[in-house]
Amino acid sequence: MKRYRCVMSYEGTNYCGWQVQPNGTSIQGEIERALAVILKHPCRVMGAGRTDAGVHAIGQVAHFETEVAFEIRRLLHSLNGLLPQDIRILSLESVESTFHAQYSAQRKIYRYRIWQDPIVDPFLRRIVCHDKRSFCEMRLQQVLKYFEGTHDFAAFVNQGTPVNSTIRTIYRAELIKEKGGFSLEFEGNGFLYKMVRNLVGTLLDIGCGKQDPSLLPILFDSKDRRLASAAAPACGLCLKQVLY
Amino acid sequence: MKRYRCVMSYEGTNYCGWQVQPNGTSIQGEIERALAVILKHPCRVMGAGRTDAGVHAIGQVAHFETEVAFEIRRLLHSLNGLLPQDIRILSLESVESTFHAQYSAQRKIYRYRIWQDPIVDPFLRRIVCHDKRSFCEMRLQQVLKYFEGTHDFAAFVNQGTPVNSTIRTIYRAELIKEKGGFSLEFEGNGFLYKMVRNLVGTLLDIGCGKQDPSLLPILFDSKDRRLASAAAPACGLCLKQVLY
Repeated sequence: MKRYRCVMSYEGTNYCGWQVQPNGTSIQGEIERALAVILKHPCRVMGAGRTDAGVHAIGQVAHFETEVAFEIRRLLHSLNGLLPQDIRILSLESVESTFHAQYSAQRKIYRYRIWQDPIVDPFLRRIVCHDKRSFCEMRLQQVLKYFEGTHDFAAFVNQGTPVNSTIRTIYRAELIKEKGGFSLEFEGNGFLYKMVRNLVGTLLDIGCGKQDPSLLPILFDSKDRRLASAAAPACGLCLKQVLY
Repeated sequence: MKRYRCVMSYEGTNYCGWQVQPNGTSIQGEIERALAVILKHPCRVMGAGRTDAGVHAIGQVAHFETEVAFEIRRLLHSLNGLLPQDIRILSLESVESTFHAQYSAQRKIYRYRIWQDPIVDPFLRRIVCHDKRSFCEMRLQQVLKYFEGTHDFAAFVNQGTPVNSTIRTIYRAELIKEKGGFSLEFEGNGFLYKMVRNLVGTLLDIGCGKQDPSLLPILFDSKDRRLASAAAPACGLCLKQVLY
């Protein structure tokens, strides 16, 4: 068996998320289906992380195995030929069998894009979250700093796949000004189910004054999801890069 | 009657073009419908130019008239509230009754975007034309220079609305390098039906060597549409700006 690693970009708007679901079309399912056609055997594709319904990626990573010999460039071309246009395989390479898209990942970078201007650019409408509230930049920066470091993020996790621990490290939580608004970039050693969107939800509520910054220590201490804000919408989120 | 001028941006993918058609949803139709709801009377919207099915705009201009008094900011907000998200009114202002979106226009700028890399960015797939042929930049520049000036563009006009004259002036025909490929920008005093796409079709065929540059004088002299290349696909085209 030979193992391969691929990097993918997708617009998640029309999908139920990365992971194969009983109902709905998933990114993973589409790629597995295309691979099965080409390789002529069922082929499980293991992603670095599960992006939710409507979440995008410009640097999702996955691996798969096959005994079928093929020319890599050709497989890449055939895959993109079979896949819908909103899913693209950007690169494909053979890797050691010890490589695991999920377990070998050291860091992930997520980007959340907020559109502030009253009128949303129609060409960006699927990849931004429109939030017209006015934010205090100093306050946003203050909260972002607070997120950085190793914390128990239990208050920012939705019920989903069971995990051993809700402790994660965020190396960088940064605000980047952009056309129409700003982006929030999070680089961490791992992110729990809906964690980025939950962090953003609380961050924005504090940033606009709806919540007080004094809520933060309470959230981290109580580990109570119900005290934090609702998750920010999926459409603004993008998995930017997975580092190994 | 008071006259108003609006600037619009739209992703044309889902529309049969600017102009109201018996079958299909048009940009003009959507805006007229939204205006009729707000103003409570039928309202004709006159555009600066008719963009074809699938063609986009970031600076289309139109005018309309009404006797209903309203606050401009509020109307702008209500219009965008009623319109689908792929059509946005960017600005609205009252103008002299002598202003005419089409007849007062002095110049228009169209942009045609070509994606060259083998893999199309999924986030740009609706607004670029994928053309993997390899182009000689010097040749493209040579053809662009040839297009500039006042010419009879009869060989680049499709049958459509009858026109008095097929003579137009192109002030600027420019190649701009961009992520994944390049754009072609055309600034002229007016463009005939499918003219930009026809110019681009011929330009690219000459640029990749499928046609010889010596075809150009033949095209302009013969005025024969059948000698020119097929129109480039609609999805790459965008009405960038209308100058008054």
